[in-house]
Amino acid sequence: MFISDKLVAVLGDNSWIRKMYDRSCALQREKPYEKIYDLSLGNPVFEPPPIVVATMVKLLQSGKKGLHRYLPNQGLVMAREWVAAFINQRSRAASITSDLVMMSGGAGGAINIVLNTLLNPGDEVLIFQPYFVEYTHYIHNFAGVVRFVPTTPTFRPDLAAIEVALNPRSKVLLINSPNNPTGVVYSAEELQGLAELLLRAGRRFGHEIALVSDEPYTRIAYDGVAVPSVFDFYPHSFIASSFSKDLALAGERFGYIAVSPHCADAQRTMEALVSSQRVLGFVNAPSLLQHVLPELGDAMVAIEPYQQNRDTLYQQLLSSGYRCVKPQGAFYLFPEAPGGDDLAFIEAALRHNLVLVPGRTFGCPGHVRISFCFEPAYIEATLGIFSRLAHEFGIG
Amino acid sequence: MFISDKLVAVLGDNSWIRKMYDRSCALQREKPYEKIYDLSLGNPVFEPPPIVVATMVKLLQSGKKGLHRYLPNQGLVMAREWVAAFINQRSRAASITSDLVMMSGGAGGAINIVLNTLLNPGDEVLIFQPYFVEYTHYIHNFAGVVRFVPTTPTFRPDLAAIEVALNPRSKVLLINSPNNPTGVVYSAEELQGLAELLLRAGRRFGHEIALVSDEPYTRIAYDGVAVPSVFDFYPHSFIASSFSKDLALAGERFGYIAVSPHCADAQRTMEALVSSQRVLGFVNAPSLLQHVLPELGDAMVAIEPYQQNRDTLYQQLLSSGYRCVKPQGAFYLFPEAPGGDDLAFIEAALRHNLVLVPGRTFGCPGHVRISFCFEPAYIEATLGIFSRLAHEFGIG
Repeated sequence: MFISDKLVAVLGDNSWIRKMYDRSCALQREKPYEKIYDLSLGNPVFEPPPIVVATMVKLLQSGKKGLHRYLPNQGLVMAREWVAAFINQRSRAASITSDLVMMSGGAGGAINIVLNTLLNPGDEVLIFQPYFVEYTHYIHNFAGVVRFVPTTPTFRPDLAAIEVALNPRSKVLLINSPNNPTGVVYSAEELQGLAELLLRAGRRFGHEIALVSDEPYTRIAYDGVAVPSVFDFYPHSFIASSFSKDLALAGERFGYIAVSPHCADAQRTMEALVSSQRVLGFVNAPSLLQHVLPELGDAMVAIEPYQQNRDTLYQQLLSSGYRCVKPQGAFYLFPEAPGGDDLAFIEAALRHNLVLVPGRTFGCPGHVRISFCFEPAYIEATLGIFSRLAHEFGIG
Repeated sequence: MFISDKLVAVLGDNSWIRKMYDRSCALQREKPYEKIYDLSLGNPVFEPPPIVVATMVKLLQSGKKGLHRYLPNQGLVMAREWVAAFINQRSRAASITSDLVMMSGGAGGAINIVLNTLLNPGDEVLIFQPYFVEYTHYIHNFAGVVRFVPTTPTFRPDLAAIEVALNPRSKVLLINSPNNPTGVVYSAEELQGLAELLLRAGRRFGHEIALVSDEPYTRIAYDGVAVPSVFDFYPHSFIASSFSKDLALAGERFGYIAVSPHCADAQRTMEALVSSQRVLGFVNAPSLLQHVLPELGDAMVAIEPYQQNRDTLYQQLLSSGYRCVKPQGAFYLFPEAPGGDDLAFIEAALRHNLVLVPGRTFGCPGHVRISFCFEPAYIEATLGIFSRLAHEFGIG
């Protein structure tokens, strides 16, 4: 066996995502003249705001030198200032400065860098079920231990369950709001509750517990719902985020990490994050985009198509008899699988040329994930399928 | 202490690089009206070939959709085909296909991905002294053990020393040719010798030993010297490389990994590398550049300024009495520090407004590294300083 035990385990665990991808491809081969509706991936079809592309072109044609050179590992000051201003604008405290921001690869890279910086082998990371499927791998990369924490039936943080899960090896609570796969947005009260609980636990165990907020969907929230900043509630908090969704730059791997100014050893922790980015081989966030960001103002992708998709899909599911939490943000729905067996429902959907992801991928069997980051017309074409599936499963 | 023991160690080890950077900045502040010559960094001042920028602009203005979306973790087939053709062109065997190539972040990311894929905790990685300073951190990231192997006095691979270092925990030999910091290029005979030795050891220990070739300087070699491909000599070999130097895209973090078709479990190993790229959070190589690469043909940066710099600096060092191996590739010189104390020499150089890196950074005290990836006029302006330093140290 040439590859490491850790990667053998990862390969074994790939099966579900890979299987759905393979099924989707096979389906298209089997039915070359039929339309396949693949709502399995969170890869938005929308393009970046025009100013992103225009600024890239302007800089490339400007003759300005050094746009593609190594940058300081922490990133360009101007880009970090943009991020600091963005975070402060969302926060009551508004107290972060650019020296506590590092530009990084996408949020996946950012979370790896944070975990590498914080975890000693055996340290525990708490994650809520359902969880983004890669979290467990990120934690295992650095010999951390995953501690799953159930949420309430409507996927809200369950303080009692967290209290039970906390123990002296707890080092990090990793949260994601707006949430993939549920669309839930944690309220100020919920973050306040989490903060009090973590502070008490930290005092009890004699060490701080880090709150890491994975928030690439911060700017994708509906009906004007507020997405409060963890920095307003808990001192030892970290933001790991990206421009993958709100600037539609998922493939360019561009994001950032921010440390709360009230975090223990904040400056030294940022120094360690910068070193971590270097030694993991990320080195610096993509250089051209770091030059572009400061010129973007508050440009972002149009949220209207997402809101429209959420509304039409949610209405259809509800009127067809599905049980589903209404997403407040992100671009996923996570209904219960009619009949209770997510795999049986996924198979039935495939027979209707519809590709979904089983909830067990997210540690939550009995549900399915529907991604709606597609053109509204594409989503509308699937509504009848959901209705027919409801009839088949006897809920419609 | 909020940060992990591993990162505390990395921070402690940062001291030399950081110190030289701080000294360079301090020097410029102390002497605002004097010119400081900073030859400490391998961050080329040259721009990418015009076709790189032109193709980026062309694609950005084409209205083509999806240039910035997530790509398959392994990368675009067209980009992988470019890499396969490039590798085959340099190899007698010419047998690699695009399914054994993955597009990745820069070479630093690529090496981390390879090590994460291959190493179980406690597995040993052999590296030659002098070594690129980050290698030890890359190995420690995945709980690997570093085994230093001395080279000959002219920095060539020393087969007897490697034989002594090999043991049942040996898993990887990590090499770098053309070499940073010495400029040495390993010959076909040397690679053949390494291969035979590794094959014998693999048979003795009952497991294959991987040969990982870090080769971002492959296209930067002088006097027409051949840079042979490891794929021609050893079955279990990996290439980890980037376009940082030959396309001057260091800040964009764009490179690749290739697995020899003769490697044990080659296909499955590539699958594991692809998963490793995903779970470490690299996800995919920058998407726009993956679309650009297939259109670049054999464009690369002009090598003439580097060759000119090597010639003038090497001549100056030789005629001033320094002892130095003549670099065959890359853009560094690694002379002995006159007087034998690299730190004393570095301090003396700073008094002449010249910033170099002490050899101890590369596990090789008694030498200094001179980077020459700068405009020839900038390099020429330093020649007199090297001559004056020679006099000061009594060798001129």
